[in-house]
Amino acid sequence: VSSRGEKFGEGSRGPCEFARRLLAEWRRLGWDTRGGRAVVAVSGGADSTALLLALEELKRAGLLEVELTAAHLNHGLRGESAEGDARFAESLAREHGFEFFSARADVGRRASESGDNLEQAARRARYEFLSEAARRAGASAVLTGHTLDDQAETILLRLLRGSGSEGLSGMRPERRLEEGTGVLLRRPLLEWARRADTEGYCRARGVESRADEMNDDERFARVRVRRSLLPLLESFNPRAAESLARAAGLLREESDALELFAARLLEDARAEGDKKLSRPDAESEMPDSPSSPAGAAEAPGAWALRVEVLNAAHAAVRRRALRLWVARGRGDLRRISLAHVSAVERLLAGERGGRVSELPGGARVERRKGLLTFCRQEGS
Amino acid sequence: VSSRGEKFGEGSRGPCEFARRLLAEWRRLGWDTRGGRAVVAVSGGADSTALLLALEELKRAGLLEVELTAAHLNHGLRGESAEGDARFAESLAREHGFEFFSARADVGRRASESGDNLEQAARRARYEFLSEAARRAGASAVLTGHTLDDQAETILLRLLRGSGSEGLSGMRPERRLEEGTGVLLRRPLLEWARRADTEGYCRARGVESRADEMNDDERFARVRVRRSLLPLLESFNPRAAESLARAAGLLREESDALELFAARLLEDARAEGDKKLSRPDAESEMPDSPSSPAGAAEAPGAWALRVEVLNAAHAAVRRRALRLWVARGRGDLRRISLAHVSAVERLLAGERGGRVSELPGGARVERRKGLLTFCRQEGS
Repeated sequence: VSSRGEKFGEGSRGPCEFARRLLAEWRRLGWDTRGGRAVVAVSGGADSTALLLALEELKRAGLLEVELTAAHLNHGLRGESAEGDARFAESLAREHGFEFFSARADVGRRASESGDNLEQAARRARYEFLSEAARRAGASAVLTGHTLDDQAETILLRLLRGSGSEGLSGMRPERRLEEGTGVLLRRPLLEWARRADTEGYCRARGVESRADEMNDDERFARVRVRRSLLPLLESFNPRAAESLARAAGLLREESDALELFAARLLEDARAEGDKKLSRPDAESEMPDSPSSPAGAAEAPGAWALRVEVLNAAHAAVRRRALRLWVARGRGDLRRISLAHVSAVERLLAGERGGRVSELPGGARVERRKGLLTFCRQEGS
Repeated sequence: VSSRGEKFGEGSRGPCEFARRLLAEWRRLGWDTRGGRAVVAVSGGADSTALLLALEELKRAGLLEVELTAAHLNHGLRGESAEGDARFAESLAREHGFEFFSARADVGRRASESGDNLEQAARRARYEFLSEAARRAGASAVLTGHTLDDQAETILLRLLRGSGSEGLSGMRPERRLEEGTGVLLRRPLLEWARRADTEGYCRARGVESRADEMNDDERFARVRVRRSLLPLLESFNPRAAESLARAAGLLREESDALELFAARLLEDARAEGDKKLSRPDAESEMPDSPSSPAGAAEAPGAWALRVEVLNAAHAAVRRRALRLWVARGRGDLRRISLAHVSAVERLLAGERGGRVSELPGGARVERRKGLLTFCRQEGS
């Protein structure tokens, strides 16, 4: 049963449908309803406003005991109207008794300085801000209002780019906010709420949400996907967005399985010397701390790999394993495309292929004596 | 370099671009250029006409030595205009010196009798006809003119239905025409030729192809996808069809890897009794023919499975393994949906779940004493 079209706000009968579904999703995902602190990212648009209001409703009803801090970033892309968003987010938060953080970024300048496009620069600025907000609030999670519509749009955008299964898996309802931190990014609306649901709930709560800063800007392909592509898909199948999200869920599960097999392949392909250096059963003359013994690969996990073991594996698993290995070696996959991974793969082809493959950012992979070795450049 | 816009038919310089790309693809797929016999499915539309003409051009140039038989099925959906298609296909084939088979089906009646929709009934009728044509011609392969456009349409249709990675893998350039036969279905245009290429090549050869019987019928979702959805996607990314095909190729490779892991899981989960009965190292008192020993599962490959082994596997691999197991048990996956596989999966959840799951067509799966058993109904 969808919450769309339902009458909301009949408070005496307990939380309304939208808040109840949020709580059901919260439990389904195994998140603690009793304790903890989270930051709620509030743009002022219907999605994040509905999320904050529904969390407030659940807290008021005693069904959720999580301390919340609202946080708003002005991306510096819309001038005065964005300042209105910030004021709206602040008064919404304070009115409902939440702590509030805000900041202002200059995404346009960041984009032109970094070479990122506006969407990438905006996302990066937002994640930095949210990490900082979580740190200041002492929160273990950041909650965002991404909906099923956002998920469908993401999948379509990635499909248009020709992504593989990892891209087409879409967003996850939970992941780490940043590599190497303990803060989680959680999206409790992602797998069920349509934009019509969040708008309906805001109306039912008598709150006039703001047009989200990023949601009307036709410079963003996402906005064009939302306005023309998704409606056309829904003319074929009224549940097209749900179908896309379902496909993404299936792909995500398969992608996770392949990632597991890829990690096992890296273990199986690990060269003998590297095994001795860092395995628990290492020989006694080895140093106690296995983190940086002489002769081991410099980056944790990017040990030398035996070419023959890689060549015996299934191509899809091998490709993922190499991608994972490069990520471990470099620390991340920024600017690494399928073409770079394919180039590393071609090193495996034997004498006919090259022996060295350069990666963006000054790392390289070498094949010698039946081994594939990851080399970080000095100082990189 | 695309062949679109190029001048064709400058015969004295050897085969033109379209035919050369066909030959390159033929070799890339590892198909024999010297010998063998194939049936070419010819609807009379630009795609299959271009395929037949390009094969003829390669044969004439001595670059391909494969015996060809053209085959045309009248689906019985368009009356006189379809008869024109049949005459066109026949004269095209005979004019170029090919053997020709044709037949007429009544797809409308078949659809209403079987409960299939028109597309399903048409596909089934076509495959039966092509199998019969291959048998009569003594051919080991059937060639069809499916293009990259068809591939993109297929992926979009499956995405609209919420398919998982197997569905989103799209069509394969080569597969068995029917389960259990040796005849291959081959699609040498699938991975590179756009519809504009086939139309351009027909024009360059001075052949006016027919509007394909199935290509203008708005009863088919595929036709609507072709006319509105794909053009909109191309307004976002002019290479959207190529992006879709690329995504499908990556998913196909991953899907194949998972299928391999699924088959291994079925081996690992095989109950001890079943292992003894059909493994090469079976005990000496066992009968020589392991195909139907007393007490073994009735269907080859659908042996009893140990629940604990299945439960220890990754969900995505387990689901595929169960699907494969059900396919082995029933002989095919007709009318089996994800919901049926999920129901079988729920049997694994222990005492709280049910103990029996019914499948369409009178088979069922039972859980008892830590084993999952496939049971075929008597007479089914």
